[in-house]
Amino acid sequence: MTNGAPPDPKPIWEIMTGFQHSAAFKAAVEIELFTKIGEGSKTAAEVADACGAAERGVRILADSLTVLGLLNKNESSYSLTDASAAFLDKNSPMYLGSVTEFIMSPQQRRGFDDLTGAVRRGGSSITGDASMDPNSEMWVTFARAMAPMMMPSAQMIAANVGFGTDRDLKVLDIAAGHGIFGIMVAQSYPNANIFALDWENVLGVAKENAQKFGVAERYHTIPGSAFDADFGTGYDVVLITNFLHHFDPDTCIDFLRKVRSALKPDGKAMTLEFVPNDDRVSPPSEALFSLVMLAATPAGDAYTFAELKEMFETAGFSGNEHIPLTPMPQHLIISTPR
Amino acid sequence: MTNGAPPDPKPIWEIMTGFQHSAAFKAAVEIELFTKIGEGSKTAAEVADACGAAERGVRILADSLTVLGLLNKNESSYSLTDASAAFLDKNSPMYLGSVTEFIMSPQQRRGFDDLTGAVRRGGSSITGDASMDPNSEMWVTFARAMAPMMMPSAQMIAANVGFGTDRDLKVLDIAAGHGIFGIMVAQSYPNANIFALDWENVLGVAKENAQKFGVAERYHTIPGSAFDADFGTGYDVVLITNFLHHFDPDTCIDFLRKVRSALKPDGKAMTLEFVPNDDRVSPPSEALFSLVMLAATPAGDAYTFAELKEMFETAGFSGNEHIPLTPMPQHLIISTPR
Repeated sequence: MTNGAPPDPKPIWEIMTGFQHSAAFKAAVEIELFTKIGEGSKTAAEVADACGAAERGVRILADSLTVLGLLNKNESSYSLTDASAAFLDKNSPMYLGSVTEFIMSPQQRRGFDDLTGAVRRGGSSITGDASMDPNSEMWVTFARAMAPMMMPSAQMIAANVGFGTDRDLKVLDIAAGHGIFGIMVAQSYPNANIFALDWENVLGVAKENAQKFGVAERYHTIPGSAFDADFGTGYDVVLITNFLHHFDPDTCIDFLRKVRSALKPDGKAMTLEFVPNDDRVSPPSEALFSLVMLAATPAGDAYTFAELKEMFETAGFSGNEHIPLTPMPQHLIISTPR
Repeated sequence: MTNGAPPDPKPIWEIMTGFQHSAAFKAAVEIELFTKIGEGSKTAAEVADACGAAERGVRILADSLTVLGLLNKNESSYSLTDASAAFLDKNSPMYLGSVTEFIMSPQQRRGFDDLTGAVRRGGSSITGDASMDPNSEMWVTFARAMAPMMMPSAQMIAANVGFGTDRDLKVLDIAAGHGIFGIMVAQSYPNANIFALDWENVLGVAKENAQKFGVAERYHTIPGSAFDADFGTGYDVVLITNFLHHFDPDTCIDFLRKVRSALKPDGKAMTLEFVPNDDRVSPPSEALFSLVMLAATPAGDAYTFAELKEMFETAGFSGNEHIPLTPMPQHLIISTPR
């Protein structure tokens, strides 16, 4: 403690009440408050009318969102900020509001409701429609909700594949989810065939997206667990996106050995991860992702590049180029079989 | 939207994941992580041992708290910040960690779990051990948890009573809760008698505190509802602390008329409230309090000074001096019978 005035407790208060801010955000997305303001509703009464909500409710919610920096207020008129116009108005092509449906889903939140237990035990004990469960409906919610958020990373991965664009590319997309990663590669590589692996129920969403993006005739599916399913062989690219962080290092290494034997000698594994620095407390978003894994998995983590590199090397890879996908908090690791 | 680069989505992400930060904070308080670090545990292994938790859990939690600014990290050693040493270490006289027991209690959180419903209806429909229910156990939790947080405001109220310190003061403490407000007046005024009104179960906590602070022989209780109980008359001071915000203006006016008739002609009502500016979006903490009332009450609010002044004037008060209790987000209003 320094001498003089006591420290400011406000930062502590803000963290403690963060759940209230999340709830305000979720309510605003659910009543489409940002969208209706974007479409021209200005006062609490007008927005309430457009959203089918009560004026008192909208007035308090909109004032709170103004305090949180997601709206502007001038006299009694609300307007969107640049960020809320870009990401929270359904009429924007960059709309990300659907992300709340996964991030704030009951399945994701229950791990945080028992975070004290996870800290005591060293891992989550959440089961039943959970991260590790076969055919978990949670991953269908994920696939539907998270595609917009993943689009920038998917485009950056496609831009880093590095083969000639006319190559007959055979691509395996592990735990494909929404399928956006493989689909973006298919869009950049007209002769690419994508093999998407995920639970059967989740692959339904990926196939819808392949159709929507016009690559359905080059889109193939492998239903099942990434640990048990037969990958086939002769892949030019294996996409391992937001997958390794769910598992302990030994499990990752076994899995990466399996990936290696599915790759051509000149193929490459392209891994997308939240990669904190060696200090594990920077950059903020990457470092905080480890908390999500503590809440949701028995032994997952946000691994540093040094840790990932060691896993890949143990599994028979070399190269391991590390490409941060700024401004997203995600990083690309490109690894080649040794 | 401005031209050029798209806006930064990180502020949106931070608000959306605020519930994760609250959960990390709650877990740290519950395992006494700050206290154990304050007592000398440094590494994740040492802290885990002291807290009876798993090293992996503590490492991820402590890294996350470092990102959130509540710990420092140097190599693999954690240390307290000035604010966490002052407010989150149980060995500090300013310890506020107990506040989470109320703010993050299931009773308080369920209102936020249904915030969308409250926005649609214009008010909370939470009942059963809720803000408005007689003998709600929630107010016992409140009384036990919130006393430390209220101490600075209570001391500032006592300092503003403004009568000669030898006066035979008769003080009514409405919805006394922990009792700290009346107790601080009793400590400053050796001839004061405090009459604490609250539900019978809550008064148990107030009486414990009166004993602890050595004013039990001048401490009297009136069990029941502030709307129905007989206050008695001849009060020099009526304390109305964090009470009015639960009710609509008409209910407040009726209540204030009752307060007025219990006061001596030269008595005063001392009201503690979260008072936002007329714009309702500043200062931040005061303005955001309206969201808590939307989540927890059918028709409560964080009222502006203009609104409070009008209620008091309608109920037969004048004066209405407005004193912000900086750095706390609370404000004192001193009103005198007309």
